[in-house]
Amino acid sequence: MINQLIEKIKKTDAPIVVGLDPMLSYVPEHLQKKVFAEFGETPEGAAEAIWQFNKAIVDAVYDLIPAVKPQIAMYEQFGVEGMRAFQKTVDYCQKKGLVVIGDVKRGDIGSTSAAYAAGHLGTVAIGSKRYPAFHEDFATVNPYLGTDGIQPFLDVCREEKKGIFILVKTSNPSSGEFQDRLIDGKPLYERVGEKVAEWAASCMGDAYSYVGAVVGATYPKQGKELRKIMPKCMILVPGYGAQGGQGKDLVHFFNEDGLGAIINSSRGIIAAYRQERYQEKGMGAENFADASRAAVLDMKQDIAQARQMAQKD
Amino acid sequence: MINQLIEKIKKTDAPIVVGLDPMLSYVPEHLQKKVFAEFGETPEGAAEAIWQFNKAIVDAVYDLIPAVKPQIAMYEQFGVEGMRAFQKTVDYCQKKGLVVIGDVKRGDIGSTSAAYAAGHLGTVAIGSKRYPAFHEDFATVNPYLGTDGIQPFLDVCREEKKGIFILVKTSNPSSGEFQDRLIDGKPLYERVGEKVAEWAASCMGDAYSYVGAVVGATYPKQGKELRKIMPKCMILVPGYGAQGGQGKDLVHFFNEDGLGAIINSSRGIIAAYRQERYQEKGMGAENFADASRAAVLDMKQDIAQARQMAQKD
Repeated sequence: MINQLIEKIKKTDAPIVVGLDPMLSYVPEHLQKKVFAEFGETPEGAAEAIWQFNKAIVDAVYDLIPAVKPQIAMYEQFGVEGMRAFQKTVDYCQKKGLVVIGDVKRGDIGSTSAAYAAGHLGTVAIGSKRYPAFHEDFATVNPYLGTDGIQPFLDVCREEKKGIFILVKTSNPSSGEFQDRLIDGKPLYERVGEKVAEWAASCMGDAYSYVGAVVGATYPKQGKELRKIMPKCMILVPGYGAQGGQGKDLVHFFNEDGLGAIINSSRGIIAAYRQERYQEKGMGAENFADASRAAVLDMKQDIAQARQMAQKD
Repeated sequence: MINQLIEKIKKTDAPIVVGLDPMLSYVPEHLQKKVFAEFGETPEGAAEAIWQFNKAIVDAVYDLIPAVKPQIAMYEQFGVEGMRAFQKTVDYCQKKGLVVIGDVKRGDIGSTSAAYAAGHLGTVAIGSKRYPAFHEDFATVNPYLGTDGIQPFLDVCREEKKGIFILVKTSNPSSGEFQDRLIDGKPLYERVGEKVAEWAASCMGDAYSYVGAVVGATYPKQGKELRKIMPKCMILVPGYGAQGGQGKDLVHFFNEDGLGAIINSSRGIIAAYRQERYQEKGMGAENFADASRAAVLDMKQDIAQARQMAQKD
């Protein structure tokens, strides 16, 4: 799947992942009203609203991008109905040819991590049969529990040719609270990065590993260090756009091959219709999907510069 | 909810939580066969099998214990149907008067952590209404992302009188890989413990905080240190029984009031019917729930000694 992801990045010339994190408040009022009229203001209605919202955006952008990243929390909060919307979204995106990164940040130990890995990337045995559950192509994973928590994911990655992105340096303001603390002179995120590089070496695709890392766009200096520590890891970069990261901050997340990073934008794309710059062009709430498409094209341009600079470096 | 949990511990005289982590292989063959005959070897069948397994065990032990801890991964691996079984389990246990600790190990940032907190402990707004989703009483949370990841849970804990247990020192063999690394002379787990104590201070119930910690029974020395660092935190202790922790290892997890810790056993209780000691007494697969009840009573006795020693200390 990492080979497929890289092919798609080359083909679209866009190392971009659209974060499908549909807060209900992002769904334009006219769409909410329409759906609630049919399903009521219920979890079923909420799930249907975010599904229809997702579908419209995916239809508008799928030819421009290699991948999407649905954030499962935004679905899980609506209970079983929300999980069904998550599954429908994963299914639909894969049918449209997109690589799906499940932003699930799971992480546990032994048989529990194995269950998460089976449910999100692999298949589960039921009697004499095997079934996939949410079957994303990649999942994000938390490293706090160490190798025991990661190993079951590695096993499934190898078997199923799926991938994971392990949290290394997260994009949020307080990520340094533990991640930046020095251990024998190096911050914890570097220690985690070194481990990620080890795990990655055991799961290689062609040029990159099935094991990647999450490093926030909001920490470009740390991104530069981590790029060197994990040369074979694709870096999934959140925090671009709404969280404050800019195109120029991204230079050092890329390798000299112009690859090695995939930049996520969620709100900046899926709620683009709320921005004046798109509203002025007639892409407001009624045309929210058009605004998302325009926002992807703008992001692509912004990032192209960073990639070119990386290749010149 | 922390006050309620402590009341229930006192009333049952059992600081015990039964881990409802139903691997499908734990469900006795006769029950699997019966359910698969009706529902097929399908995710629906698997979900029904683990639900019926859970229900029988809960019916057999609910009067002996204060709380259960369903491990969501074991349900999530069966997709939407599995999540429905999780929800049914939570509902049923609460109806039987049990405190439900959702072992979900979620953790993300900002609005994402808020969505997890709403979905597992609070309610979510849908139009003019609010709904609960999985509505556990407590949830386990991962601290790697720092305060940004925890704050939304604290907010919901205060509003809804719910609680969280934050991973501090996990029970698995490789937990030390990152958690034991020294930061200015103290291991990371102590640094996390200090933060947990801070967060706990902002969310106090009567004697204990709504914010607790997870510390593995397999690390008694570390448990002793952490007990001192987080005096007002209830410690959720996994790793007893099948993972190797024993009653005598638990002394220092308790405070002098004989409280402050709740010990989890999963396989040791729910798959007790596989142990010779219970089979010999006629509690094999056909009487799996009776074996679970006997195992709870045995565990209670084993732990009572540790509590008495803690109070004498």
